[in-house]
Amino acid sequence: MSIAAAAGAALHGRSRWAAPEARVDGLKLRERLEALSVFGRPEGGTFADGVSRVAYSDADLAGRRYVMSLMRAAGLTPRVDPAGNIFGRRDGANASLPPILFGSHIDSVPNGGNFDGDLGVLSALGTIEALTSAGTRTRHPLEMVIWAAEEGVAFGRGLASSRIVAGDITPADMDQTWNGMKRSEAIRRIGGDPARIMDAVRPKGAYHGYVELHIEQGGTLEKGGFPIGIVEGIVAIHRFTATVTGFSNHAGTTPMAERQDALLAASHLTIAVREAVTREPGRQVGTVGHIEVTPNAPNVIPGKVQMTIELRDLSVATLTRIADDIRRRASAIAQTTKTTVEISPLSQNPPALATPAVQAAIERAASTMGLKTNRLPSGAGHDAQMMAQIAPMGMIFVPSVGGISHSPKELTHWDDCTRGADILLHAVLELDPA
Amino acid sequence: MSIAAAAGAALHGRSRWAAPEARVDGLKLRERLEALSVFGRPEGGTFADGVSRVAYSDADLAGRRYVMSLMRAAGLTPRVDPAGNIFGRRDGANASLPPILFGSHIDSVPNGGNFDGDLGVLSALGTIEALTSAGTRTRHPLEMVIWAAEEGVAFGRGLASSRIVAGDITPADMDQTWNGMKRSEAIRRIGGDPARIMDAVRPKGAYHGYVELHIEQGGTLEKGGFPIGIVEGIVAIHRFTATVTGFSNHAGTTPMAERQDALLAASHLTIAVREAVTREPGRQVGTVGHIEVTPNAPNVIPGKVQMTIELRDLSVATLTRIADDIRRRASAIAQTTKTTVEISPLSQNPPALATPAVQAAIERAASTMGLKTNRLPSGAGHDAQMMAQIAPMGMIFVPSVGGISHSPKELTHWDDCTRGADILLHAVLELDPA
Repeated sequence: MSIAAAAGAALHGRSRWAAPEARVDGLKLRERLEALSVFGRPEGGTFADGVSRVAYSDADLAGRRYVMSLMRAAGLTPRVDPAGNIFGRRDGANASLPPILFGSHIDSVPNGGNFDGDLGVLSALGTIEALTSAGTRTRHPLEMVIWAAEEGVAFGRGLASSRIVAGDITPADMDQTWNGMKRSEAIRRIGGDPARIMDAVRPKGAYHGYVELHIEQGGTLEKGGFPIGIVEGIVAIHRFTATVTGFSNHAGTTPMAERQDALLAASHLTIAVREAVTREPGRQVGTVGHIEVTPNAPNVIPGKVQMTIELRDLSVATLTRIADDIRRRASAIAQTTKTTVEISPLSQNPPALATPAVQAAIERAASTMGLKTNRLPSGAGHDAQMMAQIAPMGMIFVPSVGGISHSPKELTHWDDCTRGADILLHAVLELDPA
Repeated sequence: MSIAAAAGAALHGRSRWAAPEARVDGLKLRERLEALSVFGRPEGGTFADGVSRVAYSDADLAGRRYVMSLMRAAGLTPRVDPAGNIFGRRDGANASLPPILFGSHIDSVPNGGNFDGDLGVLSALGTIEALTSAGTRTRHPLEMVIWAAEEGVAFGRGLASSRIVAGDITPADMDQTWNGMKRSEAIRRIGGDPARIMDAVRPKGAYHGYVELHIEQGGTLEKGGFPIGIVEGIVAIHRFTATVTGFSNHAGTTPMAERQDALLAASHLTIAVREAVTREPGRQVGTVGHIEVTPNAPNVIPGKVQMTIELRDLSVATLTRIADDIRRRASAIAQTTKTTVEISPLSQNPPALATPAVQAAIERAASTMGLKTNRLPSGAGHDAQMMAQIAPMGMIFVPSVGGISHSPKELTHWDDCTRGADILLHAVLELDPA
């Protein structure tokens, strides 16, 4: 039965296989989140001091070993694919059906938090354990996954190993270097096999579906009082470099009227980006996060500024409209400040829409448990967006306190963690009707 | 006779000692500017490629040797004081009178131009040669000077060695380090004597007057068609550090309405500085030249910005009014951007007003030669401001093409160089009436 047909079937009542009483063990989930936080914890710190578990580091290796030991204890046999992703399979009743895949990542940004990725991985393990202890047999095989190198730290690009599985890879990519390390070496370090990297690629249809539980990393759910978010999709990201060229001159001897101050122009442009983004209602965001000023001395009028402009939204049409508006504003700014402003595209990530049937499965799981949900886009990138290229995809969000993430202050209340894990469990079951 | 009395005397006609036909040799001046430019010239470059003759560097040592050889050829005996300043004395008729001092510097900023400082030094030499070849004997002894380390590159502070002569020094300052070099070592390198550094200090009254010829480094003279500028004074410089504190968060997941973007606030503040400076007429200037953004990544909302605010004007009252205005604007910006902005003083250089009698002497010299003059402040710092603390001071400016300086594009037409040198010569004579 296709996912869409299953969604239809489920509208007519809960199927026989459902085990509504099955629950993920919330206490174990918490214990494991705390135990995993030790790998990459700052010297002398506590759980609240966050974690630096950058992909391919010793801490990453230790964290992977820890999670694999838990998988073995749960009766799984961890398998590391050529890209370094860890899979754990639980057989279903029908071995000819494609597996349902669920999981997340355990690598972190430097000085990051203890929920980003970790919650999805340990809840995936908890889901398998809950089914085993409830004696539930699914029709489809189930696979939990720990994606390698999700954060864009190592080799400067995020979703590194789920990207490989989705087919965005060539053997030559193994020659990339970062911190003096070849990518092939990095992948070998975590148990991957760079010589067979192309074997990590999985075709469309390889999975019945993919579900990922993750913290929201924004404040929408907490503010609205929603315990569960259903992700509509992962936003498109359009990045640009703006180069402002003025004229570097003496800050003491150049009259105000004769200046061609590149930083003044860049300041107007930074404000213009915000104005263009907020001009129409919607959840689109835009950021100037990186700026380089030349020569950057207190007594010299800045002659050149390079800055990034990043725009995110589910709708590419909206991003295009905003970028056009920014360009119009930039040329007016260039004229008044006697500078030139060049805006050129740096990268464009397409949006990844969540499959409606998987969203519906999550919705049913939440409704069974009596939990309020909110549909929202994911402003952050996730491995799920790579999986969307080869399988029906859905994501479950749980609230982030204060919307903070990529910070030691990242926090999701334990109850919310457990609720998210239970929704993952039941969404997986919803995707596997008789 | 005091300078003021001399100025009065001169109003009643030119004195017997004046040699209106005496002229600095313009061709020699040009040849020497070109020859000096070789020391610190970029590999394979020409005069137009500028110079990097940073204080205490090998290029600086070579340039100093070259100028001392010219001084010897002109009959002077170069004397290096304990601070590394080079003096060349030509006796006057009355050995008991204090000398008239004139000169400038030959060190440069990295990647600087070939007129800043050099013109004043080589014109001082030309002045002495012109008097010798005209057989003119002055009453006061004359001294030309090459100040060491004028640019604020080495040890991070400008006017380093004229500052010592003016008394702003302690023996402990010799322990400062820069680029792994102790200041005592640097001074020894150029022939100074750090152990006797306090002997370089000269008391008030040590000189009858000080005159410095320099390029304007701004565009006022060129724009107005004035060959000669008479400096009213060297502006006060007030520097501040502004620290903007927002909250660093995920650029994808943080809604626009909830951001506390430190760079957005800093952009508003940069514009506010310009508005506060240009709100009232006048020649005051204000610059945000240096900015540090944390964490400065394309996908993170900036959490912190540190920036410098530099204000310059002859009037301290004006600077205070502008700084107050900036503070008011900053607190409004902090409120609308949900950030905090702290503005704290970094340094305050007082203004140095040129002595009216020396300004008048320069004016008379120009009028004798039929040259139009313009009174203007110096927005840049000069050794003259240190000399103003111990002697009557005046400065002569010549036009900078396009107002460009501290750049290889720095240019003053040869005719303007020669005219400036002649005004220096005649201003010195005006200061030495019978």
